[in-house]
Amino acid sequence: MRRRKKPGSEEKLLSKDKLVVKEPEKYKGKWCSVFQQIGEIHVEIGTGRGQFITTMAEKNPHINYIGIEMKEEVLLRAVTKAEKKQLENIVFLWFDANRLIEVFEKGELHRIYINFCDPWPKNRWAKRRLTYRSFLETYKSLLDKQGEIHFKTDNEKLFEFSLNEFSICDLRLRNITFDLHQSDLKENITTEYEDKFSQMGKPIYRCEAVKRN
Amino acid sequence: MRRRKKPGSEEKLLSKDKLVVKEPEKYKGKWCSVFQQIGEIHVEIGTGRGQFITTMAEKNPHINYIGIEMKEEVLLRAVTKAEKKQLENIVFLWFDANRLIEVFEKGELHRIYINFCDPWPKNRWAKRRLTYRSFLETYKSLLDKQGEIHFKTDNEKLFEFSLNEFSICDLRLRNITFDLHQSDLKENITTEYEDKFSQMGKPIYRCEAVKRN
Ligand SMILES: C[S@@+](CC[C@H](N)C(=O)[O-])C[C@H]1O[C@@H](n2cnc3c(N)ncnc32)[C@H](O)[C@@H]1O
Ligand SMILES: C[S@@+](CC[C@H](N)C(=O)[O-])C[C@H]1O[C@@H](n2cnc3c(N)ncnc32)[C@H](O)[C@@H]1O
Repeated sequence: MRRRKKPGSEEKLLSKDKLVVKEPEKYKGKWCSVFQQIGEIHVEIGTGRGQFITTMAEKNPHINYIGIEMKEEVLLRAVTKAEKKQLENIVFLWFDANRLIEVFEKGELHRIYINFCDPWPKNRWAKRRLTYRSFLETYKSLLDKQGEIHFKTDNEKLFEFSLNEFSICDLRLRNITFDLHQSDLKENITTEYEDKFSQMGKPIYRCEAVKRN
Repeated sequence: MRRRKKPGSEEKLLSKDKLVVKEPEKYKGKWCSVFQQIGEIHVEIGTGRGQFITTMAEKNPHINYIGIEMKEEVLLRAVTKAEKKQLENIVFLWFDANRLIEVFEKGELHRIYINFCDPWPKNRWAKRRLTYRSFLETYKSLLDKQGEIHFKTDNEKLFEFSLNEFSICDLRLRNITFDLHQSDLKENITTEYEDKFSQMGKPIYRCEAVKRN
């Protein structure tokens, strides 16, 4: 059952004009100018309620973060978190990840996070998964030479699928783990979905996929 | 509990001189001459009782197979299977995989199979695993340009470890599956261990790791 849209969340979102970038197409190739500092740009796709990206922004003040989310209600929750934390190194786009090339220039990004994206379980939906090869080819083109994709999911089938897609797209896999919370990886920042799934006792899968030079 | 050695299995093994190659070092660079046909050479490391490799040899008469196994008792079982099937395109080495470079020339092999190798579960034993990076570097050097490693295991931790090792060694991963028997892969030939584990309801992990050109 889908929750009814809260009235006015769209207006509220658009009123946060320090944190929510309107007409993001205008900044293609110029995202540096949006931030108050020169620094790497790390993007999270499907930011949801923003626990991950706002914590990352807090912990890594020299990195500039962009959270991308399609649903205005959840995005508003993320924006509110950033506001409360008074973060200066983060902005959000109310935007569809299918249109990334309209807002970013080739090589403009340094890292892309994909956390618990929708698994689209049926085979015929494979193309909608955010780790499908056509998405990966876009990410690769937007990432700079040393660019990295960091991926987490609770969904074993999606993880298996994604490892194959990363390999097919000639990305080098790194730090593959089938149970993140039992692994040696230090300083993991969790997302809202991650907390929910790991409380249910589900293992969390994670890997990094990096560009080859 | 270790089974007592059957008396005489060593002698029996060495008497099978059509199928068991004595002094394999002599054939380094010349394995073609051992077989009655020119063809690709596919090696299985830790052949065990030989169900996999003898079935492969039967199904693929134009490929030449070498089964390598350290324990004489199990190897005798494999050899007996090949004998019964009257196979001409297979030989066996009673040999330790740590010494592969003594018996094969660089680029002499076309494919290496590693099926259900011992997991050596403790971290400090990692170097003994047949998918540890130093083994992989040896395999890579013995494989020709298009060479491939095909790996199966029931052990999730070993599979996770091996995916990372393959990636570290710059092998390209392909056809990764976390549940082989439920996957679309056609014509899977099972091993004795595979039959045992899948009858216990355990999923079988599999991948291929291929050399980059
Ligand atoms: C399952 S939730 C995970 C949210 C968050 N990353 C977490 O781990 O808690 C997936 C999110 O991705 C968003 N999403 C899905 N497809 C998207 C797209 N094409 N562009 C932007 N956001 C998208 C959804 O609206 C949803 O909020
Ligand atoms: C767990 S069993 C699997 C046997 C068979 N591949 C199967 O799947 O049924 C592993 C086998 O590898 C052999 N082995 C382990 N280390 C080896 C080495 N260094 N060289 C040759 N054989 C080895 C063992 O003797 C044992 O027979």
